[in-house]
Amino acid sequence: MIKVGIIGVGTVGASVVKILEENSDIIEARSGKKIVPVMGIVRDTSKDRGVSIPLSTDINDVLENKDIDIIIELMGGVDDAFQVVKKALKNGKTVVTANKALLAYHRYALQDIAGDLALGFEASVAGGIPIIKALREGLSANHIESIKGIMNGTCNFILTKMMNENVEFKAVLDEAQKLGYAEADPTFDVGGFDAAHKLLILASIAYGIHANPEDILIEGIENINSEDIFFAKEFGYNIKHLTIAKKCANKKVELRAHAALIPSSQMIAKVDDVMNGISVIGDRVGETMYYGPGAGGDATASAVIADLIDIVRVGQSSPMLGFKRDLEGGGFTLLNVDEIETKYYMRIKVVDEIGVLTKITAILGNFGISVNSFLQKPDLKDKNAATLLFSTHKCKEKSIQNAMKELENLSTCKDKPVMIRIED
Amino acid sequence: MIKVGIIGVGTVGASVVKILEENSDIIEARSGKKIVPVMGIVRDTSKDRGVSIPLSTDINDVLENKDIDIIIELMGGVDDAFQVVKKALKNGKTVVTANKALLAYHRYALQDIAGDLALGFEASVAGGIPIIKALREGLSANHIESIKGIMNGTCNFILTKMMNENVEFKAVLDEAQKLGYAEADPTFDVGGFDAAHKLLILASIAYGIHANPEDILIEGIENINSEDIFFAKEFGYNIKHLTIAKKCANKKVELRAHAALIPSSQMIAKVDDVMNGISVIGDRVGETMYYGPGAGGDATASAVIADLIDIVRVGQSSPMLGFKRDLEGGGFTLLNVDEIETKYYMRIKVVDEIGVLTKITAILGNFGISVNSFLQKPDLKDKNAATLLFSTHKCKEKSIQNAMKELENLSTCKDKPVMIRIED
Repeated sequence: MIKVGIIGVGTVGASVVKILEENSDIIEARSGKKIVPVMGIVRDTSKDRGVSIPLSTDINDVLENKDIDIIIELMGGVDDAFQVVKKALKNGKTVVTANKALLAYHRYALQDIAGDLALGFEASVAGGIPIIKALREGLSANHIESIKGIMNGTCNFILTKMMNENVEFKAVLDEAQKLGYAEADPTFDVGGFDAAHKLLILASIAYGIHANPEDILIEGIENINSEDIFFAKEFGYNIKHLTIAKKCANKKVELRAHAALIPSSQMIAKVDDVMNGISVIGDRVGETMYYGPGAGGDATASAVIADLIDIVRVGQSSPMLGFKRDLEGGGFTLLNVDEIETKYYMRIKVVDEIGVLTKITAILGNFGISVNSFLQKPDLKDKNAATLLFSTHKCKEKSIQNAMKELENLSTCKDKPVMIRIED
Repeated sequence: MIKVGIIGVGTVGASVVKILEENSDIIEARSGKKIVPVMGIVRDTSKDRGVSIPLSTDINDVLENKDIDIIIELMGGVDDAFQVVKKALKNGKTVVTANKALLAYHRYALQDIAGDLALGFEASVAGGIPIIKALREGLSANHIESIKGIMNGTCNFILTKMMNENVEFKAVLDEAQKLGYAEADPTFDVGGFDAAHKLLILASIAYGIHANPEDILIEGIENINSEDIFFAKEFGYNIKHLTIAKKCANKKVELRAHAALIPSSQMIAKVDDVMNGISVIGDRVGETMYYGPGAGGDATASAVIADLIDIVRVGQSSPMLGFKRDLEGGGFTLLNVDEIETKYYMRIKVVDEIGVLTKITAILGNFGISVNSFLQKPDLKDKNAATLLFSTHKCKEKSIQNAMKELENLSTCKDKPVMIRIED
């Protein structure tokens, strides 16, 4: 019998307890042993968690408990969780965590501390989709060319609604909050930070890259409006919040999380509503894609328990981040954000007067930005205004940012111009 | 250094050798050791395989070679391959195989013989998609409700062309043969047998079920024509060749491989061309889907080498079929084909005369078959004929088969009626 202690008994923790009990037949058949939750650590024991295990507020009741073999860390947060997991590992306990923020900052330190002890983190990325296992083990023969993921269900729910029902961001966010798909403070999700944490975890497995969330390009979906949706549909694109890790020349890796126009024909463009999807291109296998629920108590608990079963069956199924020596000489470094090259879409609201278009295209030309397609729409609410919708050929992030600044300062520009990257 | 012998150096074998050499940096970083192919067994050593390793026609040069740690079986076939793998395991060598036919017949015997030795078979199902790992390890906390797969690239290529370009089966098959997507004798693929072999492997992991290909419902795509495609489009369906494993009441499992109408909105309906996709529904995680190339030398070799790396890193990453004890008491048995319940689509070519429809609906009624939708089309080539296209509500396979026989005997039926199952 394997005894498990759970630190943090919220939605996911309660699901873990419930599934360990209700699916004990299959879990025992697959792992060869009974896996039993014996203690939960919570802040407030008086709150009903709907679980039958004993609860305590003293974390040492699991960390120092010699009966407990495996610790499941579901407390969230970064630094406190790091101390807790460190202590668990130092006490010789294997650990399973669903904490993406912890790993976004401390994954290499934890790998070193864990050594030969297993530290499972399947649940930290894309909930119930076994993407860690696929990338770390299933695709291990490949140099990874790129990872493109839809890894935030809140963003995907909002953008799908905006695409299908022609409603504005704010209205859908309100609905998402009512449905429980968005937090009261939605910044972490709609601002792209949640997805960026997950991206860093996947990029470590693919490239062994060292970077913190602060180091990479992170943008959200707050500025997208129905005109962008109109343009996307007109040119055969879907708008998604994407996380992208891409291998570039000179052992550099691009890492970014932002909204993007992607061709509707791509498989990942078809991942709708709250679902997640991750497309991985390996140099030998080509494209594989993984789709499923990226959040929710039971889906996330499914991943937590898969890690438990792996640990009980075979100990560690792989080194934590999937490599025993530095990947390709450990030489991958982060590409400077300014150097990222992609295509762009721009929305510019202007005074509808002669010569405006000339001014704008001149600015773009000065920064070496070449226009690929162009649409002009009259403004229905403001008869003196027009909206210009462009897409560009490939250019550098620095050029587009400089052009945007100059456009913003034009007296003929009525609002701050909006830019969305195009990935095809 | 880990030394590998390869039995069968065709397309996949040559890719394995090439990738082990060209991606040796990443393979060594991930596995912790050099993995080196040292000998290939072929029927004819004079044929150029494009590989630099020594070739031999004597299989004992690898089976009895004490220097070789791992055998890769790529010879194909059932009984000879079984003897070879058995001998390798008895000689204490771990084995990796891509041979689905071998496993469709001998998976349980091989599991017993292997015991604690690893026997990797990721490449046997869906080529480069790590579906064995996902199902066996990633979803291990779940009772599996169903598996629906598009697991034959030839069928999917043909059906996608038929849907998109309104061409008939025979013409697309010719094209597929010219492109190398179909064999000279295409029966194994377009008849559904290849997909059925793969289904049995997945169903063993999900349900521990014992069955041979002969025991299950297998049909191909040869009877589908442009009228079926027309009906499918009209009612929002896509036609795919599906493999289905589904848990039913009383510890029964349905296993079947056949063409099916599936709602175009489903994620798996969007898997087009030669690609494969497998949707798995677990009782806790809900639906996850896995997409990628199901065939091809490099994609299949990617899966073979993933198994090699797992074996080198950790020995066995899981019991071969994913369970250490009988699943749910080992009690799953195959549902009798007659008892399968689903919806059906039927195409009946009739003499266009008064009273025909009455006769047909009376026959359906006699077998308890209730019509859900109906279309009648005049026959453009034969002005005395009409084509009737039905869909039904749920009924049993036995009822539809009996009704089909009676319809076929009607003098007003001009051709043998055609039936396609509907999965929604």
